[in-house]
Amino acid sequence: MTTPAILSGADVSDACFLADFQTMSSFGATGRGGVDRQAATTADGEQRRWLASLLAARGFDVRYDRIGNQWGLLEAVPGAPYVVVGSHMDSQPTAGKFDGAYGVLAAAHAAFRIAERWKVCAGRGTGRPPVLNVAVVNWFNEEGSRFKPSMMGSSVYTGKLALEDALAVQDAAGVSVGEALDALGMRGDWDGPDAAFCAEIHVEQGRSMERDGITIGLVHSNWAANKYEFVVHGEQAHTGSAVIADRHDALLGASMLVVAAREIADAFPGVVHTSVGQLSVYPNSPVVVPSRVELLLDLRSADEYALAAADALLHERVASIETAASVRIERRTSHSWPVMPYQPEGVELAAKAAADLGLVHKPVMTIAGHDSTNMKDLVPTVMLFVPSVEGISHNEAEYTKDEDLVAGVAMLTEVVERLAAGDLEG
Amino acid sequence: MTTPAILSGADVSDACFLADFQTMSSFGATGRGGVDRQAATTADGEQRRWLASLLAARGFDVRYDRIGNQWGLLEAVPGAPYVVVGSHMDSQPTAGKFDGAYGVLAAAHAAFRIAERWKVCAGRGTGRPPVLNVAVVNWFNEEGSRFKPSMMGSSVYTGKLALEDALAVQDAAGVSVGEALDALGMRGDWDGPDAAFCAEIHVEQGRSMERDGITIGLVHSNWAANKYEFVVHGEQAHTGSAVIADRHDALLGASMLVVAAREIADAFPGVVHTSVGQLSVYPNSPVVVPSRVELLLDLRSADEYALAAADALLHERVASIETAASVRIERRTSHSWPVMPYQPEGVELAAKAAADLGLVHKPVMTIAGHDSTNMKDLVPTVMLFVPSVEGISHNEAEYTKDEDLVAGVAMLTEVVERLAAGDLEG
Repeated sequence: MTTPAILSGADVSDACFLADFQTMSSFGATGRGGVDRQAATTADGEQRRWLASLLAARGFDVRYDRIGNQWGLLEAVPGAPYVVVGSHMDSQPTAGKFDGAYGVLAAAHAAFRIAERWKVCAGRGTGRPPVLNVAVVNWFNEEGSRFKPSMMGSSVYTGKLALEDALAVQDAAGVSVGEALDALGMRGDWDGPDAAFCAEIHVEQGRSMERDGITIGLVHSNWAANKYEFVVHGEQAHTGSAVIADRHDALLGASMLVVAAREIADAFPGVVHTSVGQLSVYPNSPVVVPSRVELLLDLRSADEYALAAADALLHERVASIETAASVRIERRTSHSWPVMPYQPEGVELAAKAAADLGLVHKPVMTIAGHDSTNMKDLVPTVMLFVPSVEGISHNEAEYTKDEDLVAGVAMLTEVVERLAAGDLEG
Repeated sequence: MTTPAILSGADVSDACFLADFQTMSSFGATGRGGVDRQAATTADGEQRRWLASLLAARGFDVRYDRIGNQWGLLEAVPGAPYVVVGSHMDSQPTAGKFDGAYGVLAAAHAAFRIAERWKVCAGRGTGRPPVLNVAVVNWFNEEGSRFKPSMMGSSVYTGKLALEDALAVQDAAGVSVGEALDALGMRGDWDGPDAAFCAEIHVEQGRSMERDGITIGLVHSNWAANKYEFVVHGEQAHTGSAVIADRHDALLGASMLVVAAREIADAFPGVVHTSVGQLSVYPNSPVVVPSRVELLLDLRSADEYALAAADALLHERVASIETAASVRIERRTSHSWPVMPYQPEGVELAAKAAADLGLVHKPVMTIAGHDSTNMKDLVPTVMLFVPSVEGISHNEAEYTKDEDLVAGVAMLTEVVERLAAGDLEG
């Protein structure tokens, strides 16, 4: 970023945002331009302390709730509920530096700008007077890589996951969520603020906006998904001496399932996405035919009929793999959701704001889950996207251009100000 | 085992062996009749201490060499080299209780019987006077599940693996072989005894002897093997939102390789064995397309031409999988060996001994590697098998009948006595 000699007020705000973004990206920085900040690790704790100082310096009240969500409260209307705006700063291992972190910093800067506008408004009578307060949020453990499930903080806040269950979840080393949060001093004894509306901005994690030359995506609904945990049961045997026909190779069965998942996606090109991200082998010894493989497989689509057809195909393939590999395949847990809309009035408010700001926008769907996916079931929620170059996500090479980042901050500021001004109230 | 009221001398010896076998199987016992005694774990240390007390009680000199091989020396001919007889007591995780442990206990009991015969011989002039000494050995870390590579103790003893390299190997928790042996007090400052011959007995780990009604297998050679470590390189991406055509899914490539390995075995039915026992995924997170998978793949055959054809097929498949899955497949290390004979004079000596004892025997090959596979490159070596019910191996359900176990001890005793008497000496 080069800084011209004379800057307008907006340029100064944008330069300030980009400078803070660069600072934020130093926490847990990896060698190849990404970050590694899994939930409640040292790097996650450091960036949270930095965010706390940033918020406190602007007069925000920084607090932690019982599941470690980090809040920065700006109370302009005593006792009124809040417009909750934020995302998550935790990351996958060796992830990109944008993802949720962009959304948290954009929320903080949007709130800073609104605070300034309100001061101006109070003094000079310009701007829109608030009827609601603003709460910046950094949701705890959206990624779910260290502690399952993902979207933990917003799931507890919205009552979808019991606090006790979430606190008891352990990582691979046996450390619980509660212990990890206590070690950072980031577990509070408060349930979080009262929400009236919610807004979140995030990078697209796809390439449709880049392809179409769109600056702001207005998320109107999410893809449907069926998520399964499969356990493939075989029998231990000697990898060398056991006769092939006698083997019950759990890894062969699991591998056939991974291949089948891709073949199913290929049968619905562009319409169904499938994946296996996690797969664990037991006993995982060089000379033992594996007796158990656990894997997570998911199917997603914007088209519920295609998803149902793909799902039926998957279950046919499971049955045929059981026979072909002489294994038993157990479907241990499953979790699914339909195509669900974000509130249309929120999409409409955002479309007007984008038009007023002169930002090129279009309605989009989200394939990935977000904390806003939880929040929209609690309060009217606006979800916004900025483009991502080549749609690279969960990868150190993830990239969004500065001009799109700052356009997103301006857009989010406008949306939150309108929500706080009561544009969607009764 | 039921004990008749009056026992012959041989029956008493056999009952004593079976009782000791039962005691030995209590170390690291699992709930389903197997054992979990990975190298230099607490359970491995406990059984080694028990074996030491068993050997010491019979007057054997118990010592550890620099890589932790456990020796029980019976010196009848001062200064003469040794007939080395033994196997390994360490196991895979959740393994059967027979495997190498049977071979070590059979060696100890064979040596006890030979010691008795030598006493009788010295007093009364019966039996065969020794020209060599006998050393019982419990090789360190044959299995290679906790510390790679397998057959570590015999590899160091035979000079195939540098002592320093072996001691520096770390387990998944970062504990080195040297540290683990020191914690047990089982690392010595001695190179082990001078070997003149070697003998080992083991369960077959296959079903050919059971099928043919054979009590003693005379191993004349080993199967050829090509072992590879493949690393599949992909790119991290979001499991949900990344467009399928854009993905470089390392787990898909690895799974296609696992399936290809089985298809290659199926193309050479009964002739080629293939397997992938170990496979590790990075970052192994539910929502990240894996960027790296490491796996160990091996091909084995008694027919070197078939093995070469299978290997060529594998490399063709690797190239086609790279294209189909948009990944890069690196062959990091490989290790291979041809069909190699055990010394024919040893097989002949064993055949005569089996005939003299009236035991049904046949020549067999070994598919699995054994410590004797190393030893036969150093000194003439006799490798014997007893049958294994259904060939179940590296599995808690592994089973060999008592009558076969005790026949094996009698056979091993006869072979070691003949070797110690100089039957194969110039």
